[in-house]
Amino acid sequence: MGMDDFISSGIKRLDSQLIFTAEIDKMTSVLRRNLLVDGSRRENDAEHSWHIAVMALLFTEYAKEPADVGRAVQMCVVHDLVEIYAGDTFAYDSAGNADKEDREKAAADRLFSQLPEEQGRKIRSLWEEFDAMDTADSKYAACLDRIQPFLHNTLTDGHTWALNGTKRADVEKRMAVVREFMPEVYAWMDTCMDEAVEKGWLMQ
Amino acid sequence: MGMDDFISSGIKRLDSQLIFTAEIDKMTSVLRRNLLVDGSRRENDAEHSWHIAVMALLFTEYAKEPADVGRAVQMCVVHDLVEIYAGDTFAYDSAGNADKEDREKAAADRLFSQLPEEQGRKIRSLWEEFDAMDTADSKYAACLDRIQPFLHNTLTDGHTWALNGTKRADVEKRMAVVREFMPEVYAWMDTCMDEAVEKGWLMQ
Repeated sequence: MGMDDFISSGIKRLDSQLIFTAEIDKMTSVLRRNLLVDGSRRENDAEHSWHIAVMALLFTEYAKEPADVGRAVQMCVVHDLVEIYAGDTFAYDSAGNADKEDREKAAADRLFSQLPEEQGRKIRSLWEEFDAMDTADSKYAACLDRIQPFLHNTLTDGHTWALNGTKRADVEKRMAVVREFMPEVYAWMDTCMDEAVEKGWLMQ
Repeated sequence: MGMDDFISSGIKRLDSQLIFTAEIDKMTSVLRRNLLVDGSRRENDAEHSWHIAVMALLFTEYAKEPADVGRAVQMCVVHDLVEIYAGDTFAYDSAGNADKEDREKAAADRLFSQLPEEQGRKIRSLWEEFDAMDTADSKYAACLDRIQPFLHNTLTDGHTWALNGTKRADVEKRMAVVREFMPEVYAWMDTCMDEAVEKGWLMQ
Protein backbone atom coordinates (compact mmCIF):
# COMPACT_ATOMS: atom_id res chain seq x y z
CA MET A 1 0.00 0.00 0.00
CA GLY A 2 1.47 3.35 -1.07
CA MET A 3 1.34 6.45 1.10
CA ASP A 4 -1.52 7.90 -0.97
CA ASP A 5 -3.72 4.88 -0.33
CA PHE A 6 -2.74 4.99 3.31
CA ILE A 7 -3.82 8.60 3.57
CA SER A 8 -7.03 8.14 1.61
CA SER A 9 -8.16 4.97 3.37
CA GLY A 10 -6.06 3.97 6.35
CA ILE A 11 -5.85 7.24 8.21
CA LYS A 12 -9.47 8.20 7.67
CA ARG A 13 -10.55 4.77 8.78
CA LEU A 14 -8.43 4.98 11.92
CA ASP A 15 -9.74 8.50 12.56
CA SER A 16 -13.33 7.31 12.47
CA GLN A 17 -12.51 4.48 14.87
CA LEU A 18 -10.80 6.86 17.29
CA ILE A 19 -13.67 9.36 17.07
CA PHE A 20 -16.15 6.56 17.76
CA THR A 21 -14.03 5.50 20.75
CA ALA A 22 -14.17 9.04 22.12
CA GLU A 23 -17.92 9.29 21.42
CA ILE A 24 -18.83 6.17 23.40
CA ASP A 25 -17.14 7.61 26.48
CA LYS A 26 -20.56 9.27 26.92
CA MET A 27 -21.69 5.95 28.43
CA THR A 28 -20.06 7.23 31.63
CA SER A 29 -22.79 9.86 31.94
CA VAL A 30 -25.80 7.67 31.16
CA LEU A 31 -27.12 7.07 34.67
CA ARG A 32 -29.09 4.00 35.65
CA ARG A 33 -31.71 3.78 38.39
CA ASN A 34 -29.77 1.46 40.65
CA LEU A 35 -27.04 2.49 43.07
CA LEU A 36 -23.52 1.13 43.26
CA VAL A 37 -23.11 -1.70 45.78
CA ASP A 38 -21.76 0.79 48.37
CA GLY A 39 -24.89 2.94 47.92
CA SER A 40 -22.81 6.07 47.30
CA ARG A 41 -24.36 7.09 43.97
CA ARG A 42 -26.20 5.88 40.87
CA GLU A 43 -24.35 3.54 38.57
CA ASN A 44 -23.59 4.53 35.00
CA ASP A 45 -23.83 2.44 31.84
CA ALA A 46 -20.07 2.02 31.43
CA GLU A 47 -19.75 0.62 34.95
CA HIS A 48 -22.76 -1.65 34.53
CA SER A 49 -21.50 -2.98 31.18
CA TRP A 50 -18.08 -3.70 32.62
CA HIS A 51 -19.57 -5.42 35.65
CA ILE A 52 -21.72 -7.88 33.69
CA ALA A 53 -18.78 -8.50 31.34
CA VAL A 54 -16.68 -9.78 34.25
CA MET A 55 -19.68 -11.82 35.44
CA ALA A 56 -19.67 -13.53 32.04
CA LEU A 57 -16.39 -15.19 33.10
CA LEU A 58 -17.93 -16.48 36.34
CA PHE A 59 -21.41 -17.91 35.81
CA THR A 60 -21.29 -20.15 32.72
CA GLU A 61 -21.70 -23.31 34.79
CA TYR A 62 -25.31 -22.32 35.56
CA ALA A 63 -26.33 -21.81 31.94
CA LYS A 64 -28.74 -24.45 30.62
CA GLU A 65 -27.05 -24.49 27.20
CA PRO A 66 -23.30 -23.92 26.81
CA ALA A 67 -22.51 -20.26 26.18
CA ASP A 68 -19.34 -18.98 24.49
CA VAL A 69 -17.73 -16.69 27.07
CA GLY A 70 -15.73 -14.75 24.48
CA ARG A 71 -18.88 -13.87 22.51
CA ALA A 72 -20.98 -13.21 25.62
CA VAL A 73 -18.37 -10.76 26.96
CA GLN A 74 -18.44 -8.87 23.66
CA MET A 75 -22.23 -8.63 23.86
CA CYS A 76 -22.02 -7.42 27.45
CA VAL A 77 -19.71 -4.52 26.63
CA VAL A 78 -21.81 -3.30 23.67
CA HIS A 79 -25.36 -4.15 24.81
CA ASP A 80 -26.19 -0.67 26.15
CA LEU A 81 -24.29 1.50 23.65
CA VAL A 82 -27.50 2.75 22.01
CA GLU A 83 -28.45 4.37 25.34
CA ILE A 84 -25.88 7.10 24.58
CA TYR A 85 -28.62 8.60 22.38
CA ALA A 86 -31.74 6.71 23.53
CA GLY A 87 -31.13 7.08 27.29
CA ASP A 88 -31.59 4.39 29.91
CA THR A 89 -35.14 3.03 30.11
CA PHE A 90 -36.00 1.85 33.61
CA ALA A 91 -36.97 -1.84 33.47
CA TYR A 92 -40.25 -1.24 35.30
CA ASP A 93 -41.35 1.89 33.43
CA SER A 94 -44.15 0.73 31.10
CA ALA A 95 -44.55 4.09 29.32
CA GLY A 96 -40.80 4.31 28.64
CA ASN A 97 -40.72 0.72 27.45
CA ALA A 98 -43.57 1.26 24.96
CA ASP A 99 -41.42 3.32 22.56
CA LYS A 100 -38.05 1.91 23.67
CA GLU A 101 -37.64 -0.18 20.52
CA ASP A 102 -38.13 2.77 18.14
CA ARG A 103 -35.89 5.08 20.17
CA GLU A 104 -33.14 2.49 20.33
CA LYS A 105 -33.37 1.64 16.65
CA ALA A 106 -32.94 5.31 15.73
CA ALA A 107 -30.04 5.57 18.19
CA ALA A 108 -28.39 2.50 16.64
CA ASP A 109 -28.69 4.02 13.14
CA ARG A 110 -27.03 7.19 14.39
CA LEU A 111 -24.31 5.49 16.45
CA PHE A 112 -23.15 2.60 14.33
CA SER A 113 -23.02 4.64 11.12
CA GLN A 114 -20.07 6.48 12.66
CA LEU A 115 -17.92 3.37 12.21
CA PRO A 116 -16.50 1.82 9.03
CA GLU A 117 -19.51 0.10 7.53
CA GLU A 118 -18.67 -3.56 8.19
CA GLN A 119 -17.63 -2.81 11.77
CA GLY A 120 -20.81 -0.89 12.50
CA ARG A 121 -22.81 -3.80 11.08
CA LYS A 122 -20.93 -6.33 13.18
CA ILE A 123 -21.42 -4.50 16.48
CA ARG A 124 -25.02 -3.75 15.64
CA SER A 125 -25.67 -7.42 15.01
CA LEU A 126 -24.15 -8.32 18.40
CA TRP A 127 -26.54 -5.82 20.00
CA GLU A 128 -29.50 -7.18 18.02
CA GLU A 129 -28.60 -10.73 19.01
CA PHE A 130 -28.44 -9.65 22.65
CA ASP A 131 -31.84 -8.02 22.42
CA ALA A 132 -33.53 -10.95 20.67
CA MET A 133 -32.41 -13.45 23.35
CA ASP A 134 -32.76 -16.41 21.02
CA THR A 135 -29.22 -17.85 21.18
CA ALA A 136 -27.42 -19.42 24.14
CA ASP A 137 -24.84 -16.59 24.20
CA SER A 138 -27.46 -13.85 24.23
CA LYS A 139 -29.66 -15.60 26.79
CA TYR A 140 -26.62 -15.90 29.01
CA ALA A 141 -25.68 -12.23 28.57
CA ALA A 142 -29.31 -11.17 29.13
CA CYS A 143 -29.39 -13.16 32.38
CA LEU A 144 -26.28 -11.34 33.62
CA ASP A 145 -27.91 -8.04 32.67
CA ARG A 146 -30.74 -8.95 35.06
CA ILE A 147 -28.77 -10.65 37.84
CA GLN A 148 -26.41 -7.69 38.32
CA PRO A 149 -28.99 -4.96 39.14
CA PHE A 150 -30.95 -7.54 41.16
CA LEU A 151 -27.82 -8.16 43.24
CA HIS A 152 -27.29 -4.42 43.64
CA ASN A 153 -30.89 -4.01 44.79
CA THR A 154 -30.59 -6.74 47.40
CA LEU A 155 -27.43 -5.02 48.72
CA THR A 156 -28.91 -1.50 48.83
CA ASP A 157 -32.13 -2.12 50.78
CA GLY A 158 -34.08 -2.76 47.57
CA HIS A 159 -33.34 0.79 46.44
CA THR A 160 -34.97 0.94 42.98
CA TRP A 161 -37.80 -1.40 43.94
CA ALA A 162 -38.74 0.66 46.99
CA LEU A 163 -38.34 3.91 45.07
CA ASN A 164 -40.89 2.83 42.49
CA GLY A 165 -43.26 0.67 44.55
CA THR A 166 -42.30 -2.31 42.39
CA LYS A 167 -44.33 -5.49 42.77
CA ARG A 168 -42.82 -8.93 43.17
CA ALA A 169 -44.73 -10.12 40.10
CA ASP A 170 -43.04 -7.43 37.97
CA VAL A 171 -39.59 -8.53 39.10
CA GLU A 172 -40.50 -12.17 38.46
CA LYS A 173 -41.56 -11.26 34.93
CA ARG A 174 -38.33 -9.35 34.31
CA MET A 175 -36.32 -12.30 35.67
CA ALA A 176 -38.17 -14.90 33.55
CA VAL A 177 -35.11 -15.45 31.34
CA VAL A 178 -33.05 -16.28 34.44
CA ARG A 179 -35.71 -18.72 35.67
CA GLU A 180 -35.65 -20.45 32.30
CA PHE A 181 -31.94 -20.32 31.49
CA MET A 182 -30.20 -20.27 34.90
CA PRO A 183 -32.62 -21.98 37.31
CA GLU A 184 -30.08 -22.38 40.16
CA VAL A 185 -29.46 -18.65 40.14
CA TYR A 186 -33.20 -18.04 40.02
CA ALA A 187 -33.61 -20.17 43.16
CA TRP A 188 -31.34 -17.70 44.95
CA MET A 189 -33.37 -14.79 43.54
CA ASP A 190 -36.58 -16.39 44.79
CA THR A 191 -35.21 -16.44 48.35
CA CYS A 192 -34.07 -12.84 48.00
CA MET A 193 -37.51 -11.77 46.79
CA ASP A 194 -39.17 -13.47 49.79
CA GLU A 195 -36.87 -11.50 52.05
CA ALA A 196 -37.40 -8.26 50.10
CA VAL A 197 -41.19 -8.60 50.46
CA GLU A 198 -40.79 -9.32 54.18
CA LYS A 199 -38.65 -6.22 54.63
CA GLY A 200 -41.06 -4.05 52.66
CA TRP A 201 -38.59 -3.35 49.81
CA LEU A 202 -40.83 -5.10 47.29
CA MET A 203 -44.65 -5.11 47.17
CA GLN A 204 -46.40 -8.47 47.34
CA MET B 1 -27.39 -34.25 42.65
CA GLY B 2 -29.43 -34.46 45.85
CA MET B 3 -30.51 -31.42 47.85
CA ASP B 4 -27.78 -32.06 50.44
CA ASP B 5 -25.04 -31.92 47.83
CA PHE B 6 -26.67 -28.85 46.35
CA ILE B 7 -26.62 -27.12 49.73
CA SER B 8 -23.11 -28.22 50.62
CA SER B 9 -21.52 -27.41 47.25
CA GLY B 10 -23.81 -25.57 44.84
CA ILE B 11 -25.18 -22.86 47.07
CA LYS B 12 -21.89 -22.06 48.75
CA ARG B 13 -20.19 -21.93 45.38
CA LEU B 14 -22.82 -19.59 43.98
CA ASP B 15 -22.63 -17.49 47.14
CA SER B 16 -18.90 -17.02 46.75
CA GLN B 17 -19.36 -16.01 43.11
CA LEU B 18 -22.05 -13.48 44.02
CA ILE B 19 -19.96 -12.08 46.88
CA PHE B 20 -16.99 -11.73 44.52
CA THR B 21 -19.25 -9.95 42.03
CA ALA B 22 -20.31 -7.48 44.73
CA GLU B 23 -16.70 -7.03 45.88
CA ILE B 24 -15.36 -6.05 42.47
CA ASP B 25 -17.90 -3.23 42.27
CA LYS B 26 -15.18 -1.38 44.23
CA MET B 27 -13.50 -0.83 40.83
CA THR B 28 -15.96 2.06 40.47
CA SER B 29 -14.12 3.94 43.21
CA VAL B 30 -10.54 3.31 42.07
CA LEU B 31 -9.76 6.63 40.41
CA ARG B 32 -7.27 7.02 37.60
CA ARG B 33 -5.21 10.12 36.82
CA ASN B 34 -6.85 10.86 33.51
CA LEU B 35 -10.13 12.68 33.01
CA LEU B 36 -13.15 11.46 31.07
CA VAL B 37 -13.24 12.67 27.47
CA ASP B 38 -15.65 15.50 28.47
CA GLY B 39 -13.18 16.63 31.14
CA SER B 40 -15.86 16.56 33.86
CA ARG B 41 -14.07 14.32 36.34
CA ARG B 42 -11.43 11.61 36.77
CA GLU B 43 -12.17 8.26 35.21
CA ASN B 44 -12.50 5.16 37.36
CA ASP B 45 -11.15 1.66 36.73
CA ALA B 46 -14.53 0.15 35.84
CA GLU B 47 -15.09 2.78 33.14
CA HIS B 48 -11.56 2.44 31.79
CA SER B 49 -11.79 -1.37 31.66
CA TRP B 50 -15.11 -1.23 29.84
CA HIS B 51 -13.78 1.33 27.38
CA ILE B 52 -10.74 -0.69 26.30
CA ALA B 53 -12.93 -3.81 26.11
CA VAL B 54 -15.11 -2.15 23.46
CA MET B 55 -11.95 -0.97 21.70
CA ALA B 56 -10.88 -4.62 21.46
CA LEU B 57 -13.73 -5.08 18.96
CA LEU B 58 -12.51 -2.18 16.81
CA PHE B 59 -8.74 -2.21 16.36
CA THR B 60 -7.71 -5.79 15.50
CA GLU B 61 -6.85 -4.87 11.92
CA TYR B 62 -3.84 -2.87 13.16
CA ALA B 63 -2.34 -5.72 15.22
CA LYS B 64 0.87 -7.14 13.78
CA GLU B 65 -0.11 -10.69 14.76
CA PRO B 66 -3.73 -11.85 14.74
CA ALA B 67 -5.34 -11.42 18.16
CA ASP B 68 -8.38 -13.34 19.39
CA VAL B 69 -10.98 -10.68 20.18
CA GLY B 70 -12.93 -12.91 22.58
CA ARG B 71 -9.82 -13.55 24.69
CA ALA B 72 -8.57 -9.96 24.48
CA VAL B 73 -11.94 -8.65 25.70
CA GLN B 74 -11.77 -10.96 28.70
CA MET B 75 -8.29 -9.68 29.52
CA CYS B 76 -9.45 -6.09 29.19
CA VAL B 77 -12.27 -6.48 31.71
CA VAL B 78 -10.07 -8.19 34.34
CA HIS B 79 -6.69 -6.51 33.77
CA ASP B 80 -7.07 -3.90 36.54
CA LEU B 81 -9.00 -5.94 39.13
CA VAL B 82 -6.00 -6.15 41.47
CA GLU B 83 -6.12 -2.35 41.82
CA ILE B 84 -9.13 -2.81 44.13
CA TYR B 85 -6.55 -3.56 46.82
CA ALA B 86 -3.29 -2.33 45.24
CA GLY B 87 -4.64 1.03 44.01
CA ASP B 88 -3.96 2.61 40.64
CA THR B 89 -0.28 3.30 39.97
CA PHE B 90 0.23 6.29 37.70
CA ALA B 91 2.15 5.17 34.61
CA TYR B 92 4.76 7.93 35.02
CA ASP B 93 5.30 7.56 38.79
CA SER B 94 8.67 5.81 39.14
CA ALA B 95 8.50 5.41 42.95
CA GLY B 96 5.02 3.87 42.73
CA ASN B 97 6.11 1.59 39.93
CA ALA B 98 9.11 0.29 41.90
CA ASP B 99 6.96 -1.78 44.30
CA LYS B 100 3.94 -2.14 41.99
CA GLU B 101 4.67 -5.79 41.24
CA ASP B 102 4.76 -6.82 44.92
CA ARG B 103 1.67 -4.82 45.81
CA GLU B 104 -0.26 -6.27 42.92
CA LYS B 105 0.83 -9.82 43.62
CA ALA B 106 -0.39 -9.53 47.21
CA ALA B 107 -3.65 -7.99 45.97
CA ALA B 108 -4.10 -10.85 43.51
CA ASP B 109 -3.62 -13.42 46.28
CA ARG B 110 -6.25 -11.69 48.37
CA LEU B 111 -8.73 -11.11 45.54
CA PHE B 112 -8.70 -14.31 43.53
CA SER B 113 -8.78 -16.56 46.61
CA GLN B 114 -12.35 -15.33 47.14
CA LEU B 115 -13.45 -17.34 44.11
CA PRO B 116 -13.83 -21.11 43.69
CA GLU B 117 -10.24 -22.26 43.26
CA GLU B 118 -10.18 -23.10 39.54
CA GLN B 119 -12.02 -19.89 38.64
CA GLY B 120 -9.65 -17.75 40.66
CA ARG B 121 -6.73 -19.46 38.95
CA LYS B 122 -8.21 -18.92 35.51
CA ILE B 123 -8.82 -15.19 35.97
CA ARG B 124 -5.46 -14.74 37.62
CA SER B 125 -3.76 -16.38 34.66
CA LEU B 126 -5.56 -14.01 32.27
CA TRP B 127 -4.26 -11.09 34.33
CA GLU B 128 -0.73 -12.54 34.40
CA GLU B 129 -0.82 -13.08 30.64
CA PHE B 130 -1.92 -9.46 30.18
CA ASP B 131 0.91 -8.23 32.37
CA ALA B 132 3.60 -10.35 30.70
CA MET B 133 2.72 -9.06 27.20
CA ASP B 134 4.26 -12.07 25.48
CA THR B 135 1.27 -13.34 23.48
CA ALA B 136 -0.55 -11.66 20.59
CA ASP B 137 -3.77 -11.36 22.66
CA SER B 138 -2.01 -9.70 25.60
CA LYS B 139 0.07 -7.40 23.42
CA TYR B 140 -3.14 -6.30 21.74
CA ALA B 141 -4.92 -5.72 25.07
CA ALA B 142 -1.87 -3.90 26.46
CA CYS B 143 -1.83 -1.59 23.42
CA LEU B 144 -5.49 -0.69 24.02
CA ASP B 145 -4.65 -0.01 27.67
CA ARG B 146 -2.16 2.58 26.43
CA ILE B 147 -4.08 4.01 23.46
CA GLN B 148 -7.18 4.81 25.53
CA PRO B 149 -5.61 7.15 28.14
CA PHE B 150 -3.42 8.63 25.37
CA LEU B 151 -6.60 9.47 23.45
CA HIS B 152 -8.18 10.95 26.58
CA ASN B 153 -5.08 13.07 27.15
CA THR B 154 -5.11 14.44 23.63
CA LEU B 155 -8.80 15.37 24.09
CA THR B 156 -8.35 17.04 27.49
CA ASP B 157 -5.48 19.44 26.78
CA GLY B 158 -2.89 16.85 27.79
CA HIS B 159 -4.33 16.81 31.30
CA THR B 160 -2.20 14.17 33.07
CA TRP B 161 0.92 15.02 31.09
CA ALA B 162 0.71 18.71 31.94
CA LEU B 163 -0.18 17.96 35.56
CA ASN B 164 2.98 15.94 36.03
CA GLY B 165 5.43 17.71 33.72
CA THR B 166 5.71 14.51 31.67
CA LYS B 167 8.42 14.32 29.02
CA ARG B 168 7.82 13.16 25.49
CA ALA B 169 10.50 10.47 25.94
CA ASP B 170 8.56 8.99 28.90
CA VAL B 171 5.40 8.75 26.84
CA GLU B 172 7.34 7.18 23.96
CA LYS B 173 8.73 4.57 26.35
CA ARG B 174 5.28 3.78 27.74
CA MET B 175 3.92 3.50 24.18
CA ALA B 176 6.74 1.19 22.98
CA VAL B 177 4.38 -1.80 22.79
CA VAL B 178 2.09 0.18 20.46
CA ARG B 179 5.04 1.18 18.26
CA GLU B 180 6.05 -2.46 18.00
CA PHE B 181 2.64 -4.13 17.75
CA MET B 182 0.37 -1.49 16.17
CA PRO B 183 2.67 0.75 14.13
CA GLU B 184 -0.13 2.51 12.20
CA VAL B 185 -1.71 3.59 15.46
CA TYR B 186 1.69 4.68 16.73
CA ALA B 187 2.08 6.91 13.67
CA TRP B 188 -1.06 8.77 14.80
CA MET B 189 0.37 9.00 18.35
CA ASP B 190 3.59 10.44 16.98
CA THR B 191 1.69 13.28 15.31
CA CYS B 192 -0.29 13.88 18.50
CA MET B 193 2.91 14.06 20.55
CA ASP B 194 4.38 16.64 18.16
CA GLU B 195 1.27 18.73 18.66
CA ALA B 196 1.28 18.18 22.43
CA VAL B 197 4.88 19.40 22.67
CA GLU B 198 4.03 22.42 20.51
CA LYS B 199 1.10 23.29 22.76
CA GLY B 200 3.16 22.86 25.91
CA TRP B 201 1.13 19.88 27.21
CA LEU B 202 4.18 17.62 27.00
CA MET B 203 7.81 18.51 27.72
CA GLN B 204 10.34 18.00 24.93
